[in-house]
Amino acid sequence: MSRWAIGIDLGGTGIKAAVIGEESGILIDRRMLTDTASGPMGIVGQLAAIVGDLYHVASKTLASDDFAGVGLGAPGAVDAEKGVLSYPPNLPGWTVFPLRDELQNKLREKEGLSIPVFLDNDANVAAFGEAVYGAGREFRDFLMVTLGTGVGGGIVLNRQLYRGPHGTAGEVGFMIIAVDGPLHAGIQGTLESLIGKKAIVALACQMIDASPSGSSVGLLCGNDYTKLSPRNLQHAARDGDVVALAVWQRIGSLLGVGLANVTALMDIRKFVIGGGIAAAGPFIFDPALDQLRRSTLPSMHEGLELVPAHLGNKAGMYGAAALCFG
Amino acid sequence: MSRWAIGIDLGGTGIKAAVIGEESGILIDRRMLTDTASGPMGIVGQLAAIVGDLYHVASKTLASDDFAGVGLGAPGAVDAEKGVLSYPPNLPGWTVFPLRDELQNKLREKEGLSIPVFLDNDANVAAFGEAVYGAGREFRDFLMVTLGTGVGGGIVLNRQLYRGPHGTAGEVGFMIIAVDGPLHAGIQGTLESLIGKKAIVALACQMIDASPSGSSVGLLCGNDYTKLSPRNLQHAARDGDVVALAVWQRIGSLLGVGLANVTALMDIRKFVIGGGIAAAGPFIFDPALDQLRRSTLPSMHEGLELVPAHLGNKAGMYGAAALCFG
Repeated sequence: MSRWAIGIDLGGTGIKAAVIGEESGILIDRRMLTDTASGPMGIVGQLAAIVGDLYHVASKTLASDDFAGVGLGAPGAVDAEKGVLSYPPNLPGWTVFPLRDELQNKLREKEGLSIPVFLDNDANVAAFGEAVYGAGREFRDFLMVTLGTGVGGGIVLNRQLYRGPHGTAGEVGFMIIAVDGPLHAGIQGTLESLIGKKAIVALACQMIDASPSGSSVGLLCGNDYTKLSPRNLQHAARDGDVVALAVWQRIGSLLGVGLANVTALMDIRKFVIGGGIAAAGPFIFDPALDQLRRSTLPSMHEGLELVPAHLGNKAGMYGAAALCFG
Repeated sequence: MSRWAIGIDLGGTGIKAAVIGEESGILIDRRMLTDTASGPMGIVGQLAAIVGDLYHVASKTLASDDFAGVGLGAPGAVDAEKGVLSYPPNLPGWTVFPLRDELQNKLREKEGLSIPVFLDNDANVAAFGEAVYGAGREFRDFLMVTLGTGVGGGIVLNRQLYRGPHGTAGEVGFMIIAVDGPLHAGIQGTLESLIGKKAIVALACQMIDASPSGSSVGLLCGNDYTKLSPRNLQHAARDGDVVALAVWQRIGSLLGVGLANVTALMDIRKFVIGGGIAAAGPFIFDPALDQLRRSTLPSMHEGLELVPAHLGNKAGMYGAAALCFG
């Protein structure tokens, strides 16, 4: 009656996989380190073994007729239609690889399972996870932004993923908001170059240096600013540290400018913000929303909203499973 | 057999209207000054009279059974679904006005014509005109950018207009590419503030002042730089004037940065460039395409293309008519 699927989030460090019921959410889950050294076919084997294990356990209590398939989110450029993954970062030795079909073959040969596999990139599956199970459920159209080392994005239009004509849509981190800004991955002044984790730390160091009264952040990282982290800055902001507050003010404001571009171009007014940096909460959300309003035409102010993601690092598994429920 | 429609381009200065055959293009056309002083209902009367006249003339040779309706492009924010026009610039006295239904009523009452009216904003109808009859015919997905006093845009996805959840999509001119840039319409560093007509002239004045060897542009505007126009700069560039060439290089490059944001976010790689400023041709197209490549990830380079619009100031009439052929 109620369908179920296996959702997998493949990362450069770890693999997260779960049996997910369409109505009931995560039923069983597994985590393991990604065996990056074994290359594409090694990882295909690893994925097939996890699926085999989860399917075996789950099918003791769930009807195999209700099984909808395996969904897989992977880093890098994905052609969802062809099931091909290209140049995933943090997975050495991969170039262009037909991951969907290879996993499907391996499941049939090794595990005796003839089941459909759905593949998309990690930013898209996270956005789709939030759309179906998380903070995006109330929105028909939204952008999910993931703030971390990088700044990623996934677009949901009319409750479906918008992948774009070549499947590369949603790269908010590579939108340029400072035309003469710092060079990053060969491009000047991208949003990621300004609010990625490294940029936040660099800005904090700068602002601490420039502050006449200093900052309490030093205490949190043993006065070694090379060890400064966004988490330190969060704690300091919560303690009322003026410099830390100013850092988040600036980072939030830059995020708001980036989102304003999304509103101007696509008329999207709802934003789900996830990733580790989003833990700064109101310190980043408030200036971002404020700047988003300042940076958009009054005719576009109605309905502007930023909400925190709900699913944390489970969004990928949820979204991957949701691909199977289509 | 072959359908026909009346396409109207309503502007703050003039009204352009035409009888357009779905296969054969413009058959009859009319132009007149917009009677802005008479307010919304006055202009509705003016539009109804033009439609009445064109319909009367056309129906002598075209079958009324093949008549698809009246399409209308208007400046300002349009809710295409509801047929409502809000705050059109250059049309004093308008606020929020149900233009579609009012025109439909007037046509029935005054002209005895019970015909459907389709309304959209001018940037959208121009883009749709190019999509169906112009430079966009070969593209399934593209952005049309209109370069003039303002910088406007219309998005075509899967050969249909993408209007966005609230109908305001495509405002490329209000994308921010210089976060600490000049203030324009209340927003800092928008594309329009940097490459709109005024910005081009201001940049030229600056660069002429800064140039040790001067510029031949002075000769073209009687040495009165307050009279400098993009057209002067085009002529000077064609004559090899170094300063004029540098101005177009910079403007084209800024346009390329703006387009790069569209590629990053929406994965759109085809651009149709229209409007008076686009007449600068290769002087603006070449640096724009060059910068577009520099400002996008290598994985997005395939298929990047900029082409000039084909329909000039007829794009609006064509696109308005095309709304009726839907």
